[in-house]
Amino acid sequence: MRRDRVQFVEGVLNEYRSVTMKELLNLVPPREPRHYLYDLVAAYPKRAGKGLRPALCIATCRAFKGDTAAAMNSAVAIELLHNAFLVHDDVEDGSLFRRGLPTLHSEQGLAIAVNVGDAMNVLSIRALMRNLEGLGPALAWEVFAEIEHMVGQCVEGQAMELGWIRDNVLDLSEEDYLRMNLKKTCWYTCIHPCRIGAMIGSGGSAELDRFNRFGYYMGAAFQIQDDVLNLVGDRRKYGKEIGGDIWEGKRTLILIHMLNRCSPFEKRRIRRFLALPRGDRTAREVRRILALMEELGSVDYARSMARQLAGAALREFFLAYAVAEESEHKAFVRDIVFYMVDREF
Amino acid sequence: MRRDRVQFVEGVLNEYRSVTMKELLNLVPPREPRHYLYDLVAAYPKRAGKGLRPALCIATCRAFKGDTAAAMNSAVAIELLHNAFLVHDDVEDGSLFRRGLPTLHSEQGLAIAVNVGDAMNVLSIRALMRNLEGLGPALAWEVFAEIEHMVGQCVEGQAMELGWIRDNVLDLSEEDYLRMNLKKTCWYTCIHPCRIGAMIGSGGSAELDRFNRFGYYMGAAFQIQDDVLNLVGDRRKYGKEIGGDIWEGKRTLILIHMLNRCSPFEKRRIRRFLALPRGDRTAREVRRILALMEELGSVDYARSMARQLAGAALREFFLAYAVAEESEHKAFVRDIVFYMVDREF
Repeated sequence: MRRDRVQFVEGVLNEYRSVTMKELLNLVPPREPRHYLYDLVAAYPKRAGKGLRPALCIATCRAFKGDTAAAMNSAVAIELLHNAFLVHDDVEDGSLFRRGLPTLHSEQGLAIAVNVGDAMNVLSIRALMRNLEGLGPALAWEVFAEIEHMVGQCVEGQAMELGWIRDNVLDLSEEDYLRMNLKKTCWYTCIHPCRIGAMIGSGGSAELDRFNRFGYYMGAAFQIQDDVLNLVGDRRKYGKEIGGDIWEGKRTLILIHMLNRCSPFEKRRIRRFLALPRGDRTAREVRRILALMEELGSVDYARSMARQLAGAALREFFLAYAVAEESEHKAFVRDIVFYMVDREF
Repeated sequence: MRRDRVQFVEGVLNEYRSVTMKELLNLVPPREPRHYLYDLVAAYPKRAGKGLRPALCIATCRAFKGDTAAAMNSAVAIELLHNAFLVHDDVEDGSLFRRGLPTLHSEQGLAIAVNVGDAMNVLSIRALMRNLEGLGPALAWEVFAEIEHMVGQCVEGQAMELGWIRDNVLDLSEEDYLRMNLKKTCWYTCIHPCRIGAMIGSGGSAELDRFNRFGYYMGAAFQIQDDVLNLVGDRRKYGKEIGGDIWEGKRTLILIHMLNRCSPFEKRRIRRFLALPRGDRTAREVRRILALMEELGSVDYARSMARQLAGAALREFFLAYAVAEESEHKAFVRDIVFYMVDREF
C-alpha cells in the first residue's frame, strides 16, 4: 500500500476516532460509583484502538450523503459495544494484555471487570436512545434492530469459539472457522457499521444487504490478519502478547490449517498441550507449535488467505458503494480494505 | 400471613410464571449453537424461581386495566435481564449454588457462563423490540427508557457491592447498605416492574413516580429477608448454600449491623477473615461469625427491619395504587408485600 494512502487512512481513522471518543466519554455519567465503575468504563476506550468500526459507520454515512453528526450516536454505541465485548472476551480467554496494558480483569479483578462490561452495554443503549431525536422514531428503531442482530451474532460466534476451546475440539475445517468468524467478528466489525452508516446517510433508502458480502470478506481478512500479527507481529505495535492465541488455545485459521496437515503424532501432542489449563502450558511448547505452523506453511497460508479475502472485499466494495458518488469518504472505505491486511497493529 | 392469602399469592405467582416462562422459552432461537449457548440461556429460567418481577409487572398492568398480553414482552424482558444478572452475579461472587443446583459457571466454566449472560441480555432487547407492534412506537420507546434506567441502576449498585468486597471496606453504615440495595435490587425487582406495568396498563397515563417509594420499601424488605434466609433458612427451600453470604463476604445489613457493634478485637478478626480469598476461609470461622451475628442481635435486627419496611411499603401501596379500582390484581400486589417477608425461600 502506498505511503500516502496509508497516511490518508490513518488520518481519517484518527479524526473519526477522536470525535467518537469525545462523544463516548461525554456519555459516561459524571457521578459515583467512579472508582469501581465509571472510571473503568472509560479505561479501554481511552487506550486508543484503531477506531475502525465508528470510522466505517461514519464514512459510509457520509458516502451516502449523511453527515458525521447523524451517525455519531450509532458510532458511539458500536464502539462501546466493541469495548464491552473486549472486556468480557479478555475475561473469557484469560488474556493478559490489551492495547499495550494489562487487561481490565488482571488489573481490577474478575468481578469488577465483568460488571464494567455490563455497564458499557447499558451505555450503548443510552447512545442508541439518543437517535430518537436526531433520526426520528422509524430510523432510530431500525438502527436498534441492526444492533440487536449484531450483538446476537457476536455472542453466537463467541459461544462457538469458547465451546471449541473448552471441549478441546480439534476436528475443525476452514469452513467452521469462517462461519465462527462471520458471527463473532464480521457482523460487528464491518457489516453492521457499514449497513447502519448507509441507512442513516440515505435516510433509510439504501439497499442494506449489499453490504453483507463486502463486510464479510473484509471482516474475515481483518481477523485472519489479526491472527497472523498475534503470532509474528511486533509486540509494541500490536499491544497484546505475541503468541497469545496459542497460549489461549484459540482456534485460528492458522491452528486449524496446521492441525489438518501435521502428523498424527504431532496432533496428539498438540491435543495434550491444548487440554492443559493455560497456567500449565509452557513457553517451550508454544514455541514448538509456532515453529510447526511456520514449517507447515500455515502462517503463509493465512497471510495469503487474508490478501485473497481483501481482494474479494474490494470487488464487493464496488457493488456495495456503486450508488454512492465518488468522494473522499468512499475512497476511505475502499482504501481501508487494503489497510486491513497491510497494518502492523 | 393467613394460609389462604399465601395460597392466593403463590397461585398467582405460579400462573404468571408459567405464562412468562412459555413466552421466554419461545424467544430462545431454536438453532445452533445449542450446546454452548441456547440450551444454557434457558438453564436458569427453567430452574423455577419465584417469578416475582414478571408477576408484579403483569398484575400492575391488569390493575391499571391492561391485559396480560400487553405486558408480556416487557415481563419476559425483565425476567431475562434478571436471569442474565444472576448468571453474571454468580460469576462475580464466586457463588456455588443457584436455585438448588450448581451455578452456571461451576457447571459450564467461567467463559461460557459470562457469554450466556450476554446472550440473555441480547434476547431481552429482542423481547422489548416486539413491543413496537403491540404497544406502538411511543409506549414501546418509553418501556425501553425504563429498562435502560433499570439496568443502569443495577450495574451501579453491583459496582458498589463488588468494590466493597474487593477492597475489604468495613466502615459502612445502614444508609450505605440501603443506597446500594436501592440501586442493585429495588429498581429492577420492584420499582420498574410496577412502573412498566402501570405504564402499559394505563396506556401511558399513570403517574409513574408514585411507584418509586412503594417499590423501594418493598425491594429493601425483600432483600433484607433474603439476607436473613441466606443465614438461617432451610437449604432445600432456599436453594443456595446457607451462610453463602458470609463465605462470599457480602456486605449485608446483618454484617454491617454486627461490624458496628462488635469489639475492636472481633472487628480485626473479621477483617482478616474477609481479606482472605474465598478458598482460604474456613467453615469454623463462618460459624463463629454467624454466632456473633446472632449474639449481637444482628439477625433479629434485620428481621425486624424487613417487617418495618414491609409496613412502609404497605402504606405506599395505598398511595401508588389509589387510582386503580379494587381487583384481584391489586389485591395480589398488596398481599405480595407481606409475602416478601413471610416467605421461606
